Amino acid sequence: MSYNNFGKLFRFTTWGESHGPAIGCVVDGVPPKIPLEEQDIQKYLDRRRPGQSKHTSQRQEPDRAQIMSGVFEGLTTGHPISILIKNEDQRSKDYDEIKDKYRPGHADITYDAKYGIRDYRGGGRASARETAARVAAGAIARKILGKGVTIRAAMVQMGHHKIDRQRFNWAEVARNPLACPDAVAAEGWAAALDKVRRDGNSLGAIVEIEATGVPVGLGAPHYAKLDQDIASAMMSIHAVKGVEIGAGFGVAELLGSENADEIRRGKKGAPKFLSNNAGGILGGISTGQPVVVRIAVKPASSILTPRQTIDREGQETDIITKGRHDPCIGIRAAPVAEAMLACVLADHLLLDKAQCG
Amino acid sequence: MSYNNFGKLFRFTTWGESHGPAIGCVVDGVPPKIPLEEQDIQKYLDRRRPGQSKHTSQRQEPDRAQIMSGVFEGLTTGHPISILIKNEDQRSKDYDEIKDKYRPGHADITYDAKYGIRDYRGGGRASARETAARVAAGAIARKILGKGVTIRAAMVQMGHHKIDRQRFNWAEVARNPLACPDAVAAEGWAAALDKVRRDGNSLGAIVEIEATGVPVGLGAPHYAKLDQDIASAMMSIHAVKGVEIGAGFGVAELLGSENADEIRRGKKGAPKFLSNNAGGILGGISTGQPVVVRIAVKPASSILTPRQTIDREGQETDIITKGRHDPCIGIRAAPVAEAMLACVLADHLLLDKAQCG
Amino acid sequence: MSYNNFGKLFRFTTWGESHGPAIGCVVDGVPPKIPLEEQDIQKYLDRRRPGQSKHTSQRQEPDRAQIMSGVFEGLTTGHPISILIKNEDQRSKDYDEIKDKYRPGHADITYDAKYGIRDYRGGGRASARETAARVAAGAIARKILGKGVTIRAAMVQMGHHKIDRQRFNWAEVARNPLACPDAVAAEGWAAALDKVRRDGNSLGAIVEIEATGVPVGLGAPHYAKLDQDIASAMMSIHAVKGVEIGAGFGVAELLGSENADEIRRGKKGAPKFLSNNAGGILGGISTGQPVVVRIAVKPASSILTPRQTIDREGQETDIITKGRHDPCIGIRAAPVAEAMLACVLADHLLLDKAQCG
Amino acid sequence: MSYNNFGKLFRFTTWGESHGPAIGCVVDGVPPKIPLEEQDIQKYLDRRRPGQSKHTSQRQEPDRAQIMSGVFEGLTTGHPISILIKNEDQRSKDYDEIKDKYRPGHADITYDAKYGIRDYRGGGRASARETAARVAAGAIARKILGKGVTIRAAMVQMGHHKIDRQRFNWAEVARNPLACPDAVAAEGWAAALDKVRRDGNSLGAIVEIEATGVPVGLGAPHYAKLDQDIASAMMSIHAVKGVEIGAGFGVAELLGSENADEIRRGKKGAPKFLSNNAGGILGGISTGQPVVVRIAVKPASSILTPRQTIDREGQETDIITKGRHDPCIGIRAAPVAEAMLACVLADHLLLDKAQCG
Repeated sequence: MSYNNFGKLFRFTTWGESHGPAIGCVVDGVPPKIPLEEQDIQKYLDRRRPGQSKHTSQRQEPDRAQIMSGVFEGLTTGHPISILIKNEDQRSKDYDEIKDKYRPGHADITYDAKYGIRDYRGGGRASARETAARVAAGAIARKILGKGVTIRAAMVQMGHHKIDRQRFNWAEVARNPLACPDAVAAEGWAAALDKVRRDGNSLGAIVEIEATGVPVGLGAPHYAKLDQDIASAMMSIHAVKGVEIGAGFGVAELLGSENADEIRRGKKGAPKFLSNNAGGILGGISTGQPVVVRIAVKPASSILTPRQTIDREGQETDIITKGRHDPCIGIRAAPVAEAMLACVLADHLLLDKAQCG
Repeated sequence: MSYNNFGKLFRFTTWGESHGPAIGCVVDGVPPKIPLEEQDIQKYLDRRRPGQSKHTSQRQEPDRAQIMSGVFEGLTTGHPISILIKNEDQRSKDYDEIKDKYRPGHADITYDAKYGIRDYRGGGRASARETAARVAAGAIARKILGKGVTIRAAMVQMGHHKIDRQRFNWAEVARNPLACPDAVAAEGWAAALDKVRRDGNSLGAIVEIEATGVPVGLGAPHYAKLDQDIASAMMSIHAVKGVEIGAGFGVAELLGSENADEIRRGKKGAPKFLSNNAGGILGGISTGQPVVVRIAVKPASSILTPRQTIDREGQETDIITKGRHDPCIGIRAAPVAEAMLACVLADHLLLDKAQCG
Repeated sequence: MSYNNFGKLFRFTTWGESHGPAIGCVVDGVPPKIPLEEQDIQKYLDRRRPGQSKHTSQRQEPDRAQIMSGVFEGLTTGHPISILIKNEDQRSKDYDEIKDKYRPGHADITYDAKYGIRDYRGGGRASARETAARVAAGAIARKILGKGVTIRAAMVQMGHHKIDRQRFNWAEVARNPLACPDAVAAEGWAAALDKVRRDGNSLGAIVEIEATGVPVGLGAPHYAKLDQDIASAMMSIHAVKGVEIGAGFGVAELLGSENADEIRRGKKGAPKFLSNNAGGILGGISTGQPVVVRIAVKPASSILTPRQTIDREGQETDIITKGRHDPCIGIRAAPVAEAMLACVLADHLLLDKAQCG
Repeated sequence: MSYNNFGKLFRFTTWGESHGPAIGCVVDGVPPKIPLEEQDIQKYLDRRRPGQSKHTSQRQEPDRAQIMSGVFEGLTTGHPISILIKNEDQRSKDYDEIKDKYRPGHADITYDAKYGIRDYRGGGRASARETAARVAAGAIARKILGKGVTIRAAMVQMGHHKIDRQRFNWAEVARNPLACPDAVAAEGWAAALDKVRRDGNSLGAIVEIEATGVPVGLGAPHYAKLDQDIASAMMSIHAVKGVEIGAGFGVAELLGSENADEIRRGKKGAPKFLSNNAGGILGGISTGQPVVVRIAVKPASSILTPRQTIDREGQETDIITKGRHDPCIGIRAAPVAEAMLACVLADHLLLDKAQCG
């Protein structure tokens, strides 16, 4: 059952296919009187936009966000904000060749099995172009969170290349086209990715997202846990196959005495945690420490390397996916993951205000 | 904001504290005329029940499920099924000593910050005892899924001890008290866990959950993806810090050509995948392959090793958590994770029937 | 699809059949630290309780509410409050005779058509006994609203007998067993109802519910209008066939110049409306005037007068519904309608706080 | 809290203001492979469109629906259908004069109190122009219901003028500009309405909506009752102040023996009801008889007759609302009410399929 909406109070609904006239979203639950203009959204869309380096898809989309409702004289009205993003650089003919073939690793085969429809034009509704709408919603979520909350993401692993955490520097992320926080690593990664791309192949990645300044007390036990909703948000992003919070899968190898973050008296008597294995969340509720999330992003399945598949008739065949694809999806997944985290936090900010405000 | 319910159509609501008179759940959306008796639920509760070996909590709870509504003459009526599980072995006095201290790694501090209430009796609403209600709901979910779907879980890593996947045998899981699918490993693990327990410490774990026989077509793109809802379900379980599907975090190190599961013509013309990195889900929709999920379970924070903390007044102190705790939560997390996967699948079975049935 | 829960943030889930072991509800979304004890709930249940005069059902149910969770040391914890009400005076044998017959005006025939199950014991899940759970939830809702909000209900019409609105006096409602606000009318009504009851028949009614002290600004345009949610709440009550707000159906006969409530400057500059045709709601949002609602309650279908019907086999037959039924459901509908209005207002209070607080 | 979406499985979200660039809706949960083109929607929008006779607003809006997503090669895809309706005939200057005044009977004052924003351009989000989006959603709902279900509406009372039910003829509704099912009455009504309009005033109305061919078994007891969801849907429409089902408020004056619809054996053994006081719904579930609903529609508050009011500063003033308003909203409410009923029925069709299909 189609459920193209996310969130409980701060909610957005997305719509659109990669090769239709436009995509968009409707963002509901926004408090009134927040200053909002198109540029507030555009600046985040620009970070997600393809075609900005050779390391991302060469599709040329201006991705211009138009606010269609919900803003009056520069302020949010409390009513739904509809955002429209026109599709401009569509080349459906790129897909003619694979019209009846299922691309391995893609949703082609499952969509067809479920809906009996094969929209072969760039993935149709399954296209990662949908994530532009998420980024737009995320920009509004950030406005609700205010300047005290900072959300950022970095690619901390690309293929088998890992960063050196001693060199982790958030400022580096914007300085290289790979969203890599380690300046030294970034250089080698660029060469490695270039080679993979020229080989007609792609690389997986791990992206780390961090939110600082998150108020204490967001989340709720049992089915609206902050980490639960983050996991849901992240796993809803195209190509994500894993989510972890704080020490994540690493907790398996920790003793209880190592894992539980000890507490001391901090400034002004506030609690001070001596470590952050919890990733800023205990019992589903934020502790005030940075919320730390990592996601595993699979390598793009649209590659020039021939792969075995079948067609709609069930006949065996080979496939090469031409087109303008991302050699490493992790790069452009970073702003999308940031947006989803912003949406979850904004939602929980409103939820907390309702019950405990 | 408290949201103690899970699911869209097949939904359950849980309630209760570890040291109140009872816990329970209300399961709604169950199709009518499904045979259901208390024993169908009890057999799963018995697997989760503490006190069955020295490797789990020594709390002695019969965990007897009473069906209070929704079943008439042995058949579900289509109306809500209320299940009551009395709390019998409560020893609130175990907690007197720590009444005003925050246990590191526990929800004590966040609950108190959010709600201004400190229910010190065994975690109150945060207690993992809540998972008994999930197991009860899961038992009903399995009835909806029918015998064609098999859901099972095994502990595949305990601390730094990993199984040998060549020896993976589902039949072993029930034969040892550690839910370990590798008979050889199980022996060493028992000794290791025993030592950790005697040391007043605890171990983390990785649990793998698998569902076979899942129909093709469950799930929906964008915000009701099958993997998204599984991630949400798993991360809602106490102590879980990571979730991955199929190749999971391993995808980071794969090339696109290695990751995308190739497709051939299988029996009766049905698609046959040559691998299962996708973990049975493409584009948020089930492929018919086994759904494979892994979760990271942190080591119990209730340990006898003294830890640094503060009390409600903000004063620094040390804490030892006596009581009857699990040296490795992973063991009892296995039936809970199975239950949550069953609930997600049953929900999506109904959702799919609604739109595409 | 079974949906036994009501509300968006302040939510309750009800369960149970009239002839099972108990009925109950789980109330979620309650702010923490509100003083709550069983007596707070009991006093409203006592008003709804049958058997208090010859004008209501003679079933003898103590309807004792037990709080099973969500309250700690006399305060709400912010977690779900589970309330259990045992069924004590069950006489299933009263129903043996009609086991296979569909009672006209009852849900027997539609439940059986939909679910394929005939729970003949007093209506099963369709029983108005379910409304005890609503009253319990409403008692908690009132606690959230606080003492500034007063919610009360009166029966303003019984059969063709109408009150004289000049004699409307809320104080009278508790002084007669008919919840009639007109002392003079009440006397005649008692005799009339007595006659109808002795004739083995029943009477319809109109109940008026009013909430004063409702803060300005509750509700939201489009699909969470305060009047919309009130309409939903009221129509969800057994036997209700109509709902109106303010001037209600009377607006049909008004000119625009008569209907729109004019506004003047009131105390401290606050708006003062010169009339209340709007019933306290404009554009789905509360104005601060009294919220005024009226519901039409059908006459009980369980009567001693023989009626034509069919049985499960489709054979024509006659039916007399013995048992202990209400000659005028309107009387006991009054506290239920109050409870539902309280729940809607509490929900919208939290919703408003979330977005505009 | 803003909740601009309606429905549980068949869901739509509306957005837009009367004087922004466009309004629209996103319709989700539509089964795949249903033939759908813009004309299917347009034909219903044309019925709601203003400016078609002197009896409705003279605003000239083509109200052209554009399908932006969710349809591929003429068939629904199972993904969200986004519909865009541009605003073309905006005359914001009509509103300059009343910019700071609250129109009595309008949402101006409550919106401003709640949101602190006064969008004076034709009501902003509160504008009845929003109902065009509902009509578009309703057109898609009808496609899901199929040709076996007929939904139609008629104005059965205008001011104090009532139809003669003996002359009720559905065919007449389209033959006069008043949606009146009584040809004789229609003539007198036209003259009466003309006079009221020339007097700068307006009339209230009662609209009756009927659905035939509704399958037995739609709806669910307790909080998803078919009549409950219909009441919610109808009361969500602008200007509606009352909703009734079947005999509605008339039940108050009926005896139990008169009200309960007796049952006989009908064709092929199916139940045959001897009357339809229930309005096609028993216990919240459809009986298969026609679903009969009536709504009370208040007279337009935008009139040329001067009314007393205050401005944003709280100063007393008078107001005349110029512009292009409807002398009797009931006329154009008819297609909107039909659309909302279609949406509720389509939603419950899917819900029923999920649990009992």
